[in-house]
Amino acid sequence: MGFFQKLAGAVERNESLLCVGLDPDPDRLPAGARDVATFQRAIIEATSDLVCAYKPNLAFYEALGEPGLEALRATLAAVPDDVPVIGDAKRGDVGHTARAYARALFDGWGFDAVTVNPYLGGDSLEPFLEREDRGVFLLCRTSNPGARDLQDLPVLLGEGLPARPLFEVVAERAKEWNTRGNVGLVVGATYPEELGRLREICPQMTFLVPGVGAQGGDLEASLRRGLDAEGGGLIINVSRQVLYASQGEDFAAAARQVALALRDEIGRLREAVLSGRP
Amino acid sequence: MGFFQKLAGAVERNESLLCVGLDPDPDRLPAGARDVATFQRAIIEATSDLVCAYKPNLAFYEALGEPGLEALRATLAAVPDDVPVIGDAKRGDVGHTARAYARALFDGWGFDAVTVNPYLGGDSLEPFLEREDRGVFLLCRTSNPGARDLQDLPVLLGEGLPARPLFEVVAERAKEWNTRGNVGLVVGATYPEELGRLREICPQMTFLVPGVGAQGGDLEASLRRGLDAEGGGLIINVSRQVLYASQGEDFAAAARQVALALRDEIGRLREAVLSGRP
Repeated sequence: MGFFQKLAGAVERNESLLCVGLDPDPDRLPAGARDVATFQRAIIEATSDLVCAYKPNLAFYEALGEPGLEALRATLAAVPDDVPVIGDAKRGDVGHTARAYARALFDGWGFDAVTVNPYLGGDSLEPFLEREDRGVFLLCRTSNPGARDLQDLPVLLGEGLPARPLFEVVAERAKEWNTRGNVGLVVGATYPEELGRLREICPQMTFLVPGVGAQGGDLEASLRRGLDAEGGGLIINVSRQVLYASQGEDFAAAARQVALALRDEIGRLREAVLSGRP
Repeated sequence: MGFFQKLAGAVERNESLLCVGLDPDPDRLPAGARDVATFQRAIIEATSDLVCAYKPNLAFYEALGEPGLEALRATLAAVPDDVPVIGDAKRGDVGHTARAYARALFDGWGFDAVTVNPYLGGDSLEPFLEREDRGVFLLCRTSNPGARDLQDLPVLLGEGLPARPLFEVVAERAKEWNTRGNVGLVVGATYPEELGRLREICPQMTFLVPGVGAQGGDLEASLRRGLDAEGGGLIINVSRQVLYASQGEDFAAAARQVALALRDEIGRLREAVLSGRP
């Protein structure tokens, strides 16, 4: 089963557009979480009926060295088979090296989807794209303040045409590269206007939307501008707000409460957005 | 000692601008190389007096899973202390995640320098840049054919100004971000003209130049256009041509012969370029 089918299954079964980002910080381990692996497993057990996906960010595991990679293995083993996992790796390299990354992420770790950086162009993405059963989310408009530095640069696409920001050009390219229907975009919730532009450009593409919660993204605006015609097409990622919902022994129950509230809030706002559409 | 001092020491001691890229492919292990770690160690022992740096690309180790990371550890342990190691990781993520990558690469692996992807902007690079003793090479104009897809897009920087390709804007930004003197650029040898433009924009920056050898880059043109005013500022990376110089038992000696020939060829061409300058 391909990533997007697995995603659709989880969205429907759990009535959820919520993705929980698994970014473990050992300095913030709650009381009662013996180690990162135990912590992540407890979070997953407490939330797996509330999410459409999980998104471990490899940086946090790599920062812990070999025990971190052990923890990632244990974390992935704890995710139920019918919940897809997006490996947030943001890799990007020339063709034969990208092939090695694709092997590491898809075959080694077994991720259902990954995030990749488009700066090196189409041939650098091909080793990921050719894996038709996996999802490939291209960084397009990221959630950080510095996203503006390059992603907003005005690009001239031809005589007499108005300049367009680079991230829009990335979205246009993503459509061209999406010959197998397995491409998505990463679009930060911190920029709802840009999210709206991208929905116009890519009416049918799935957007992975980080930036809600700790980064201050606007959930309502993101749904209003980002939902596709069918009221889907968004994966709303929240990491720290769920993971560190409590520093006490009750961290897993607290994470569940926050995840439940977020899922329902997303559902409620989604209904409101859809009912307000002409 | 900072990366650039260590680099300068190795350049002078070994009279070399040659960097050997350590991209182990288990399918191409020569006879007599028991495993990746043995292979890499033998290559390093055979070449460490001929190079200015080594550049392991993490993709190839990650593709092998845990044994690959073991091999990377063994590889790094084999590099003499006075030869700098550039971790070719091409990472790029939002601030707090980039911090985790910087920890993984600088503190975990102990790389003297790394490659990073600039697409996420200045704040995503800061966790790397703030490590003043480490080198940070920003992807600018990469060596692959797809580099054109985004890196060449014409960017409008202001009313009445001519449009400039995105990679030139990245170079201009790199100069602004280089407040601590630890920034370099990755510029493919496959595009000598662009290399020349970048040398005009950044007369004093060090360029890491992949693409000579298997990728078909032009060594003479790269030196002619890329050497700085003092005849330095370039790290010429060659990977497969050295690593797989022979498939036989003599692979290490063959690697040494190729590395020696490349080092001397670079030296000869460098002299010719410098003596031809006005």
